Amino acid sequence: MGCLSATRSKAIHKIDIPALDWPMARFPRYKYPLEDYVHENQQEDAKCLEETEDLIHKYNAAGKPVAAILVEPIQAEGGDNHASPEFFQGLQQIGKRTGAALLIDEVQTGGGPTGKMWCHEHFDLPEAPDIVTFSKKMLTGGYYFKEEFKPPQGYRIYNTWMGDPSKVIMLEEVIRVIQRDRLLENVNESGDILMKGLTTLQNQYPQHINSTRGRGTFIAFDGTNAAKRDSIVNKLKLQGIHSGGCGDKSVRLRPALIFQPHHANIFLNKLETVLSNL
Amino acid sequence: MGCLSATRSKAIHKIDIPALDWPMARFPRYKYPLEDYVHENQQEDAKCLEETEDLIHKYNAAGKPVAAILVEPIQAEGGDNHASPEFFQGLQQIGKRTGAALLIDEVQTGGGPTGKMWCHEHFDLPEAPDIVTFSKKMLTGGYYFKEEFKPPQGYRIYNTWMGDPSKVIMLEEVIRVIQRDRLLENVNESGDILMKGLTTLQNQYPQHINSTRGRGTFIAFDGTNAAKRDSIVNKLKLQGIHSGGCGDKSVRLRPALIFQPHHANIFLNKLETVLSNL
Repeated sequence: MGCLSATRSKAIHKIDIPALDWPMARFPRYKYPLEDYVHENQQEDAKCLEETEDLIHKYNAAGKPVAAILVEPIQAEGGDNHASPEFFQGLQQIGKRTGAALLIDEVQTGGGPTGKMWCHEHFDLPEAPDIVTFSKKMLTGGYYFKEEFKPPQGYRIYNTWMGDPSKVIMLEEVIRVIQRDRLLENVNESGDILMKGLTTLQNQYPQHINSTRGRGTFIAFDGTNAAKRDSIVNKLKLQGIHSGGCGDKSVRLRPALIFQPHHANIFLNKLETVLSNL
Repeated sequence: MGCLSATRSKAIHKIDIPALDWPMARFPRYKYPLEDYVHENQQEDAKCLEETEDLIHKYNAAGKPVAAILVEPIQAEGGDNHASPEFFQGLQQIGKRTGAALLIDEVQTGGGPTGKMWCHEHFDLPEAPDIVTFSKKMLTGGYYFKEEFKPPQGYRIYNTWMGDPSKVIMLEEVIRVIQRDRLLENVNESGDILMKGLTTLQNQYPQHINSTRGRGTFIAFDGTNAAKRDSIVNKLKLQGIHSGGCGDKSVRLRPALIFQPHHANIFLNKLETVLSNL
């Protein structure tokens, strides 16, 4: 019930489930390319931070104290929306001022796809987030947290397997392979090629795509509208490329950590084929 | 939040968690040995069923309709409380009359320890329960249900792994070994030896233990009081036997499916050593 009160991505998940009165603050929506909209995007950060702090004060004053700020480092289902390190630093400060914990949801971003083990490592936060949730590449649903968030009483949080040890054993092997095969370096190399190639393609086909953004291989771009986006996703499939839609008109790329530079070039060639025939 | 609203076993789990207003009906508390208290226990069944139906009507009338009856086939944490097949048949009828689904929680009992794959198979229910939950011996938390409980909309219930396939692969092997090694037969043989031996011991040491009850190797007995129970559990540990307390004064046995007749005899000898030295 808590999860479904927090999610905002698909209405179908929430049908008939009672929800808690938890406020949602706006996440920045940047204009791209970033270098052309520095001032506008800084204003967007400031506006979203101000709204967030106002909402917390409003709920606290109404006797519904805000216990935590939940945020994705890249708002994924919502359309691969990115925000600046300064935005996340601002959120952490708001948490400290208002007594709300900062929970960073790394379910999609954790485990390497952004080129660091945790996406929030890109944000130069003065201190670690209070709680970090993970899943997907990390094999099991879990979270880590600052010592002060550990309940002092024994058995307060309890389950049969105390953390799913069989999954942790598998995860140890995953992490060993990430290190052995230098997969984070691979992600950064492949991601650079994707970002450069997509930037070239969006300049070449501005009537079809724009707003390329990403970290590592965790990359998205927008179609000029929803129909264009759907058409690109479908035609990529016919080329043997599986991509995903997210948000209103975005295409997101979620390759595995073993996606290498030559795979990136295959993708870019196929995408160019699709765009040149739209 | 739903789980914690349903559980009644340990207060420590529920601290600071808001709970839903879900009524709890009494589960029968039988007098043992059963053959000496047939009439009393039938009355207890009738009383608990009547209270359950009254509670449902009361909540339905108050605009808080009862969606489901949740019941363990053996109330485990609560003290290994058993109820008759007739009690569970009565619950199923109440569900049908009032429109509440019957959910049987086989988290502790499922997967073989009662000598059948599912404990509710002991109850001769005219039809299957509506929903059955499982975990522990089944390796992953899950449930199965009647077709009519499947949401008609796609993506209504959704998660990344759609059912934890790596655990299902391991479970297939577990089930193969249960069948290959006839482990349910083994459970029944070992359970018979335990039940007979414990019945003999409770007749021999009525000042220490009583109320032996169980199905398969899913067996419990009571100490004459909480201190006696704790003493038995502790002294068994010194004999190399791990048992568990549950309820106010019960000792529960939860051996693995590979617990064989000779293990049962080892246990009974050690328990006799403990009882004769209390």
